This record gives sequence, C-alpha cells and structure tokens, in this order.
Amino acid sequence: MTRFVTIAAGQLGPIARTESRTEVVTRLMALMREAKACGCDLIVYPELALTTFFPRWYFEDQAEIDSFFEREMPGPETRALFDLGRELGLGFCLGYAELAVEDGIVRRYNTSILVDKSGAIVARYRKVHLPGHAEHEPWRKFQHLEKRYFEPGRGFGVVDAFGGVMGMAICNDRRWSETYRVMGLQGVEMLMIGYNTPVHNPPAPEHDDLSLFHNHLVMQAGAYQNGTFVVGVAKAGVEEGVDHIGGSCVIAPSGEIIARCTTKGDEIALARCDLDLCNSYKRTTFNFDVHRQPQAYGMIVERKGVTTMADGTAASRKG
Amino acid sequence: MTRFVTIAAGQLGPIARTESRTEVVTRLMALMREAKACGCDLIVYPELALTTFFPRWYFEDQAEIDSFFEREMPGPETRALFDLGRELGLGFCLGYAELAVEDGIVRRYNTSILVDKSGAIVARYRKVHLPGHAEHEPWRKFQHLEKRYFEPGRGFGVVDAFGGVMGMAICNDRRWSETYRVMGLQGVEMLMIGYNTPVHNPPAPEHDDLSLFHNHLVMQAGAYQNGTFVVGVAKAGVEEGVDHIGGSCVIAPSGEIIARCTTKGDEIALARCDLDLCNSYKRTTFNFDVHRQPQAYGMIVERKGVTTMADGTAASRKG
Repeated sequence: MTRFVTIAAGQLGPIARTESRTEVVTRLMALMREAKACGCDLIVYPELALTTFFPRWYFEDQAEIDSFFEREMPGPETRALFDLGRELGLGFCLGYAELAVEDGIVRRYNTSILVDKSGAIVARYRKVHLPGHAEHEPWRKFQHLEKRYFEPGRGFGVVDAFGGVMGMAICNDRRWSETYRVMGLQGVEMLMIGYNTPVHNPPAPEHDDLSLFHNHLVMQAGAYQNGTFVVGVAKAGVEEGVDHIGGSCVIAPSGEIIARCTTKGDEIALARCDLDLCNSYKRTTFNFDVHRQPQAYGMIVERKGVTTMADGTAASRKG
Repeated sequence: MTRFVTIAAGQLGPIARTESRTEVVTRLMALMREAKACGCDLIVYPELALTTFFPRWYFEDQAEIDSFFEREMPGPETRALFDLGRELGLGFCLGYAELAVEDGIVRRYNTSILVDKSGAIVARYRKVHLPGHAEHEPWRKFQHLEKRYFEPGRGFGVVDAFGGVMGMAICNDRRWSETYRVMGLQGVEMLMIGYNTPVHNPPAPEHDDLSLFHNHLVMQAGAYQNGTFVVGVAKAGVEEGVDHIGGSCVIAPSGEIIARCTTKGDEIALARCDLDLCNSYKRTTFNFDVHRQPQAYGMIVERKGVTTMADGTAASRKG
C-alpha cells in the first residue's frame, strides 16, 4: 500500500522586531504558493512564526509582552493565510504565541495548530518542554525567557488528518525522547516540529559548533525509534543580532534525512512521504507490543531529576 | 575538573561454533594486553562474547542449549581472564549467557558483568529487551531465538566504579530510548553496550543497508540526550554464514563518535574519556530537574503497545 502526503518544510529567515504580522503573513503566503506549485498537501512553518522570537528580551510591561501574542486564530492579520490555504487546498502547521482565556483566567502558551485543506483547525498543541529560564539573567548575551512568558502544555496528542496520524511538537520538545515515544504510542506517522534555535547557547557555549548536528541527531533518532516521519522547520538566520540554525528537513521513518533546506532564509524543502513506510518499522523492530518492557521504565515517570547512588536510592548491583 | 577513564572497545570477529571457550578467552586476553599497552583502565567486550551467537539456531535439546551457558563466573575456562585483568590492573565488561539458580529455579539470562581492576565483579546486568522471536520460524534464513532461550532482566541499574557512574545495556536495549533515560535518571556517565547485530534482518530486509547507520544513530542520541559516554562493542563479521555489523565505537556526551573500529575482526578502538565532560550537558540542556515534564510521560509506563484513535482512547484534539 501507499499513502502519500507531499510536504513542504516552510523555513523562514529572520523576522525583524519592527516587521508587522501582515508583512510576515505575506511571506508565509509566498511559501504557500510555492508549495502548492510543487504539488504539496501540507506546509509546515516554524515555531512562533508570526513575530520575532521575543523571549530573547526581558520585558517588564505585560502589555508589551502581550503584543507578541494572538488572542484569536485566525485573527484579522492571519485570516488571509487561512483563506489562501482553503483556496489552494493546502493544509498548514503554524506556530504562534497563544493568549487563551480558560475559566476566566488568562493563559499564555507556545502553540502550534494544524489546519486542514478546508481551512479548519483540526488540532492544537501547546509546548510541553519550555526551555530557558524564568528570571532575567543579565549576564547572558541574550535572554531565553520561555519559562517566564509561557506556561507548559499538558501533553502530546495526535490527530487523524491528511490520511494519516499526525502529531506536533515544538522546538525543545524535540530533544526529549519522551516526546516522540508518547506520540509513538498513539501511532504517530508524521510529527511536525517548528523551532527557533540560536547557534549560541549562553550556559554551554562549548557546544555551539554542534547545534546543527544535535538538531538533526535528536529528530533522526526520534523518527527511527518510533517509525514516523519527522518534519523539522526552523526560523533561521541572524534575527535581531542573534544567529539561529537553519537545517529544516524532512526525515523518513528510517531516520534518513530525505529533504533539507540549505539557506538560512525563506525556503521550502520538499518530500513526497509514503506514510505506509512507517509500517516496516512499527511492525518489526519497533513493534511495541512485542518488544517494549514498560515494567522496567518506572523511573521515567516516578522521578523528574537525577537521583544518584550518593542519594542512597539506587542499587549498586542490579539483578 | 577532569576524571579520565581510558577505555578500549574490544571488538571481536566471528566465533565459530567449534571454537572452545578456552580459545575465545585466549583472544580476549590478547585484546586485554593490547588495551593495557595503550594505557587503558577498562576494556569492553561484546554481548555473548564466549561462544558463537547460538540463538541463530533452533535447538530442541535443552542440554545442547545449555552448553552455551555459564554456570559460574569465573568458571574453569574464564578464570584466566579474571587473573590477567587483576595482574594487569585492567577492568573489563563481558557479555555471556548466564544460567542461574534462583530459589531452586533454573533461569537463563543474556548477561553482562563489570569487573574492576582487582578482578572483582562489581555489577551484573541482565538484558531487558530481548529481540527476535520465541518459536521456530523456518522461513527465516536464520533464527533469532532470544525470546526462547532467555528470560528478560528486571531493570537498569548503575554502579559507582572506575571513578564514575557506570551502566550496562546489551544489544537491542540500545534501540530503546527508555534504556538510556532510566540510567540517565541515575546519573550514568559511561554506558557499556555489547551487541551481535546481523546485517540482514529477515522480517525487514528493506533496511539491511541501514544497519550500521541505525546502530550509531541510537547510541549517539542516547549519549547526547543523557549526557553520558556510550561504548558500543560488536561481535562482527561473518559468523557461521551470517554477516554481522562491526562499527564498535566510543561516543562522547556530545553524541560525537570519538573512536571506532574499522575492521570486522578482533580490534580495539581507544578513547581517553573525561567523565566530567558529562556535566556540561547534565547541568544545562539536559538538566532533568529543570526541564523534564514527567506528568506528560504517563503513557510510557501505562501502555506497552500502540493504542490508536481507532481504538477510541486517544484524544483527537489536545489542549
């Protein structure tokens, strides 16, 4: 059997702080038209794709922070994107900062949505693994205040769409094997991941030259170990003085990179993905029913951080 | 700070079915002397390093099966290895088939032990993820009857030895992200993994040309995502008509391969590993206490196999 989804990784170059949403949406729409001209069913955009990556700054004024958030989706400036998608019959996955009111309480999430070919939102995901820090740390060359500006989402779901089982994750989620496994356990066949990843990580600058390698390593392993396609999409290049990795790519269930961007600007990378290729992994090496051993995995949920033998809880010998 | 462990990945070429344990131990001792001459503290040998990889055959006679197992460790034929290790002041990690009697019941495990420089066994690990199948499947070019001949071990522990936190896993364990994470949560700094991996996988021959890529991918990701060294050691080459991958290697906490074998015979690959390099990952990107979100990982222990939306249990939208 074959079940093809033709996909575009819709990479964006930098978005200036002064750039309006309308200007950004114009760029998104240009990529959308390119994707449609190449026969795509779906285009995946980066994390926080409507504005500059604002967690790099410390703001005290909540109104200034909230200026980067969307109160409705689609809203006045994003409706054109939904309209064009529907007109072209092209789905999309879009990351943005979401301001939601739940039971009268204002909540802020780092969110992705999946929109089908009719322009309907069919799934929403809120980032679980917020990286960075919650307090202003002036020693850093730039901030990474996601833990201040967002609250974490509750979990990882999947949705039946585009003829397959689709999942979403955002940026730092991709470094955590649990992200892939929780969706793997729901049968995910295509996992869409937007990211904004500075080349320079202030707490560990010794790894800066490995940023791109790590980006691909974690997504390739997650794809293989769960028998799923992974689409990783960057906001790339030098944005407000901070250089971000590119390397947007489509990864097959084999773990192989089958398409990738090579610029750090607005660019699409294309892949015709046969979702049925997932089966040759899901039914053999990674047939979870046959091979997983959950009784040995308890610590993964029972503890958050490391407990060492010095803490007196780990066995020094294991039978 | 620096805490160096100089390590040898002690790869073995094929072991013929007719080869005696004494002959194999002679080969192991030769590698041990080479490792010592290169200043090593520790040599890591493959999975089931004392005999040919017997699960490739279907045997009905339990006595014939048991001829591949060790009833004591060290035993008459393996004592020389322990003696030489003690004489040289060289530790080793060794895989073998273990026949144990527990509460009067005979149990069979696929086991690794870690032996310190004094010749004392300081840790024992029994393989959790047994691959293959339990019944004879004559359609296969060769069998992989680990699920028939062994029972699974209970879990993954670590041990304080060689100046660091050491862990062990065996072969198929390395494909499962949970293996690394459970030991990562115990602070593992060096994870030793022996393997016997045929190039050809009868249920999924379409991936045969990726066997070596997958081998490295999973170990590199496991190293990086847990900030640990990984030492992967093959029994390599054409053994009793079955070709096995080599690719024995040492992987840094960065995920980079820092040493590897290039033959498919008896060969050592060397690396001087500073265990303190683990910290720059464990304290930043992979500071579990700060960044993990166990409340979102429940499925990893709550279910063994895939449950899809068609089964009616997964949410079609996730908030």
